[in-house]
Amino acid sequence: MTNQLDAVPQLAPVTVVGLGPMGLALAGALLDRGHPTTVWNRTPAKADDVVARGARSAEDIAEAVSASPVVITCLKDYETAHGVLAPATDALRGRVLVNLNSGTPSEAAAAAGWAAERGAAYLDGAIMVPPPLVGDPGAVFLYSGSEDVFDEHRETLASMGAPRFLGADPSLAVLHNTALLGLMYATMNGFLHATALVGSAGVPAVEFADLAVNWFMPAVVVNPTLVEQAADLDASNYPGDLGTMEMNLNALEHIARTCVEQGVHADQARHMVAIAEQAIATGHGGENYLAVFEVFKNAQATPQRRIASRA
Amino acid sequence: MTNQLDAVPQLAPVTVVGLGPMGLALAGALLDRGHPTTVWNRTPAKADDVVARGARSAEDIAEAVSASPVVITCLKDYETAHGVLAPATDALRGRVLVNLNSGTPSEAAAAAGWAAERGAAYLDGAIMVPPPLVGDPGAVFLYSGSEDVFDEHRETLASMGAPRFLGADPSLAVLHNTALLGLMYATMNGFLHATALVGSAGVPAVEFADLAVNWFMPAVVVNPTLVEQAADLDASNYPGDLGTMEMNLNALEHIARTCVEQGVHADQARHMVAIAEQAIATGHGGENYLAVFEVFKNAQATPQRRIASRA
Repeated sequence: MTNQLDAVPQLAPVTVVGLGPMGLALAGALLDRGHPTTVWNRTPAKADDVVARGARSAEDIAEAVSASPVVITCLKDYETAHGVLAPATDALRGRVLVNLNSGTPSEAAAAAGWAAERGAAYLDGAIMVPPPLVGDPGAVFLYSGSEDVFDEHRETLASMGAPRFLGADPSLAVLHNTALLGLMYATMNGFLHATALVGSAGVPAVEFADLAVNWFMPAVVVNPTLVEQAADLDASNYPGDLGTMEMNLNALEHIARTCVEQGVHADQARHMVAIAEQAIATGHGGENYLAVFEVFKNAQATPQRRIASRA
Repeated sequence: MTNQLDAVPQLAPVTVVGLGPMGLALAGALLDRGHPTTVWNRTPAKADDVVARGARSAEDIAEAVSASPVVITCLKDYETAHGVLAPATDALRGRVLVNLNSGTPSEAAAAAGWAAERGAAYLDGAIMVPPPLVGDPGAVFLYSGSEDVFDEHRETLASMGAPRFLGADPSLAVLHNTALLGLMYATMNGFLHATALVGSAGVPAVEFADLAVNWFMPAVVVNPTLVEQAADLDASNYPGDLGTMEMNLNALEHIARTCVEQGVHADQARHMVAIAEQAIATGHGGENYLAVFEVFKNAQATPQRRIASRA
């Protein structure tokens, strides 16, 4: 029996539905922090590891949902989540559903409506780290939906990582997740393509990575200047006195030409040329490069002819 | 008259040819450091500012070249440099020509040959900072060509910024410059597109920039892990045990779908989908995302049909 003086307050019970690698990591982090944790998975054997660490495996989804005031789903997508929870909708009433699937903003908004119809409070979330980092105090989890629900359960959410609340629109977490992943892929493609370009002259990737990642990116590209410039994006203010879109188009055409000369893939450079051309065609030729933001805000696709003519 | 004890050793005379904003910054940095500096520009009035600060304006290009053992050209392109120096080729013999134009690798190689034919030593360089940062000890200048020449004149080069030597092939500086600029544009486009995506839900750019630049990029994307992974690129080693190209294609298609749903520009996402599809089509579906490096190394363009069919 624990000494009264050493007793820690009982942490909130939590249910985790879906025990893929990420669901197992979530359940493990909750157990490590001391939450009474109930788990459910379509294939019960997936629960063995966390049961051995103290989790309770529910017999069915209704029992799983009934076990805790907070139910976290970590399934393949929203459709799967709705299907899995369907037999437990009565049990959901009055509880908090925290959905950590990925999906599109409209799917997140629909899930919030689905939960509201069933009398459940709802938070939508996005996990920004791989499973091994879940539970780390620096592991960022993005949330959107009811701020009251977020505040009330912040301690529970903090047992899985560092929770950040983005706003009342439930689609904000998944939208931020998608935007950040898009940024990640664009940067990775930029890095890998640049590495291929210097590789055409026999430069090892490890040598270029040191220059690009340890010096160029933090010193020149991804630095506080970019955050300061963001106010200009909000104001659609792109003064061209230190460099114009026309000058940047020259540089981009030059990059595309160099790709061809070196025999590496040139589509990425051509795509960037087409974006700058579109910015010029819509009146931004004398503004600075950030004005491509005006192109990106518009769904109008770059005319295929323009890309094809440069191929 | 300077007290003998305080006298500093005389720094090497330098000539700067081409006085655009960058050429003026170079001449200014050399003057600030104490180099006897001669300048030449097609339009002599451009020299007024640096002459007022102590530079000597040469009457013609031959006089400019003859004034210093090191001649730095900072002109529009290689063709312009060859044209400007043509009347001074006799004077060039035995001197060092440092070319800081941008261009393609083959143009840099040709310029090295051009200088060799005229009996001049040659260094090709690329300035990685804007004019206001020239002269700063952290301002990186990339050089390639003769290592002996680089070592001999390192002190002079260091008066303009932090010189980095990349190798004997004279085209390496311009190739690195082009690759790094491509990486910069890809990252900027990724950031601006992601900002447009969250902006479709009313999120201000300043708010997203704080999340993306101050947290996500350094913590998740551009960090020492990427440098460690570069060894796998050199080895064409892309183990898929923590995530496969197929899974990444799913995520990319998801990003493209979200762009359409939110009414923002979707070409960038479609381009990245096409690259991942090409990686899968060439046998990398079970490998990790870094295997797109194999696509980028190959000049074979993505079939236009595949992009067009998704438009």
